[in-house]
Amino acid sequence: MKAAVWYGKKDIRVEERELPKIGSNEIKINVAWAGICGSDLHEYSHGPIQIPVEKEDPLTGKKAPLTLGHEFAGVVEEVGDKVTRYKKGDRVTVNPSITYGVKEDHLDIYDGYAAVGLHTDGAFADQVIVDEKSVYSVPDHLSLEDGALIEPMAVGVQAMKEVNLTIGQTVAVVGAGPIGLLTIIAAKAAGASKIIALDLSETRLQKAKELGATHIINSGEQDPVTAVKEIVPDGVDATFEVAGIEATFNQAVKMTGLRGIVNVVSIFAKPILFNPLNLTQSGVKITSTYAYEPITFQQTIDMMANGQLKPQGIVTGRIELDDIVEAGFEVLSNDKAQAKILVGISKEK
Amino acid sequence: MKAAVWYGKKDIRVEERELPKIGSNEIKINVAWAGICGSDLHEYSHGPIQIPVEKEDPLTGKKAPLTLGHEFAGVVEEVGDKVTRYKKGDRVTVNPSITYGVKEDHLDIYDGYAAVGLHTDGAFADQVIVDEKSVYSVPDHLSLEDGALIEPMAVGVQAMKEVNLTIGQTVAVVGAGPIGLLTIIAAKAAGASKIIALDLSETRLQKAKELGATHIINSGEQDPVTAVKEIVPDGVDATFEVAGIEATFNQAVKMTGLRGIVNVVSIFAKPILFNPLNLTQSGVKITSTYAYEPITFQQTIDMMANGQLKPQGIVTGRIELDDIVEAGFEVLSNDKAQAKILVGISKEK
Repeated sequence: MKAAVWYGKKDIRVEERELPKIGSNEIKINVAWAGICGSDLHEYSHGPIQIPVEKEDPLTGKKAPLTLGHEFAGVVEEVGDKVTRYKKGDRVTVNPSITYGVKEDHLDIYDGYAAVGLHTDGAFADQVIVDEKSVYSVPDHLSLEDGALIEPMAVGVQAMKEVNLTIGQTVAVVGAGPIGLLTIIAAKAAGASKIIALDLSETRLQKAKELGATHIINSGEQDPVTAVKEIVPDGVDATFEVAGIEATFNQAVKMTGLRGIVNVVSIFAKPILFNPLNLTQSGVKITSTYAYEPITFQQTIDMMANGQLKPQGIVTGRIELDDIVEAGFEVLSNDKAQAKILVGISKEK
Repeated sequence: MKAAVWYGKKDIRVEERELPKIGSNEIKINVAWAGICGSDLHEYSHGPIQIPVEKEDPLTGKKAPLTLGHEFAGVVEEVGDKVTRYKKGDRVTVNPSITYGVKEDHLDIYDGYAAVGLHTDGAFADQVIVDEKSVYSVPDHLSLEDGALIEPMAVGVQAMKEVNLTIGQTVAVVGAGPIGLLTIIAAKAAGASKIIALDLSETRLQKAKELGATHIINSGEQDPVTAVKEIVPDGVDATFEVAGIEATFNQAVKMTGLRGIVNVVSIFAKPILFNPLNLTQSGVKITSTYAYEPITFQQTIDMMANGQLKPQGIVTGRIELDDIVEAGFEVLSNDKAQAKILVGISKEK
């Protein structure tokens, strides 16, 4: 079969690969659609970041070269002899999280974490093999293209839980890249009464407005803290930091209201300068979002199926697997107007 | 009357001062005992930090030179014509917080804050004048010396609320100075099952153990994170950062368990290097403690009166007002074995 395999930074090769035989508890899926994630892009541009290279990942036992791709949906091709919940022909998606499963769900992802498509072979390929317990049905109301958006959408849903957002509250989202946009979509579904999107790119801000932002602020043209307080004078109830740099982190704290909450959704690559006194004098709390609990994944499916969550608008491109480097990774690296690019793979797409 | 007046850094003068006539809603108190706070010490050593010098404080209308002292108790000497709740001879203490009182109590202290003894004349004096609404009765079970400990004790009680501490949880307290010790006392009263105190000073650690710490760790001799995890392998439920420097802040995050909580009780003088990724990968949250709500002040009085909170052990010295610079500020600056020094003032002490 064909697969897009990560060999190193700027070295992803679309080549022939053989799949192993499936295990008793495993399921082989014909991949229909797979989205390119920011994590994939970081591995392409600056990797290895998460991909195990020197030694095998302790959870998966695998190391590079590995096939990328962890946001996907497809059709079951074959099931292991102990698989009970799925059969050939079922339309499915996958929660790519691989954990030890020792701790309770809300702690489990922090107790050792790997992902299909980063720490073991993923879905930028004709077929992928995963454990039955990672597989979820795609409801009839959703296409397989929709199915490829469930995974990143679940991050936005989890972010709402991490701030205990309740109906009517006000929200700021700092950074309107793909995860920022999904955070906006989740905030709307959670009942936020004002959703303020901030970014440097006018194109991204217009997309944010299409997808649910009630206000947009170009942080390059206005002071972001002042601009947010013109809309919500006391500061917002919750701010989502989805940009991942020192300036946006500190802005996020300052645009949040007294005893409000900042949620760090982005992954920080390095330490930043920060004065805890800014928390002391405002009562602002800091939390974070790391993937999602399994229940959040299922809830995301349910809410997409009933139309409460509509992430489809984040898709800015659809490409073929053969073109994944030039039309996928390179385009995403160079064009900030791009949000989510989906790779259409099998005939089932 | 005699008063210890702050004129500038290292310039506190014990001198004669006249009190103004009291206003209709004001109460004049003969000060019995007044404690020297870390804030007072900072004003002496590095000030002005909070004390208004250039222009009058917007809440009090006062500026330096000002009489310090905000942890105190005494006996009512005179009341204004509209005062209804107190009369001459009543034993009282004072919540020194001065706020606009526009927002709800849990937000009010963040919406503009001044303090008796920092932003207006305080209690290192024979007498002090305060607004009736700041005054609380000292119950019969408590001495006026105990009364001078209510204010700092309330900070420790508020810190427990900021982490929603529940009975049986495990706690680390990083820094065993006066507020660290009061945090330990509050954690014990809140039902913490393990209370781990960390400091560089063996004297302070021994004091911590006397006052309720179940375990002590000398951070100069052992790696603090490793040592905490030897006691609570998954990390503690809540860590109180009461040291206020970069190293202890980052240690606090790392010794806290998955989805646990760090509470910054200390005042950071400058920004620190910190990687939010340490929150993302652990689910640890950061909160802070800034003074206390009025209800916490009354609850602290009640719990001291019924013996649940016993802060008396933090007192390491009792001095006269005339000696406040040499036997108070200078001793606290140079001797880390000191915790709380009380100044005994009127004949009522």
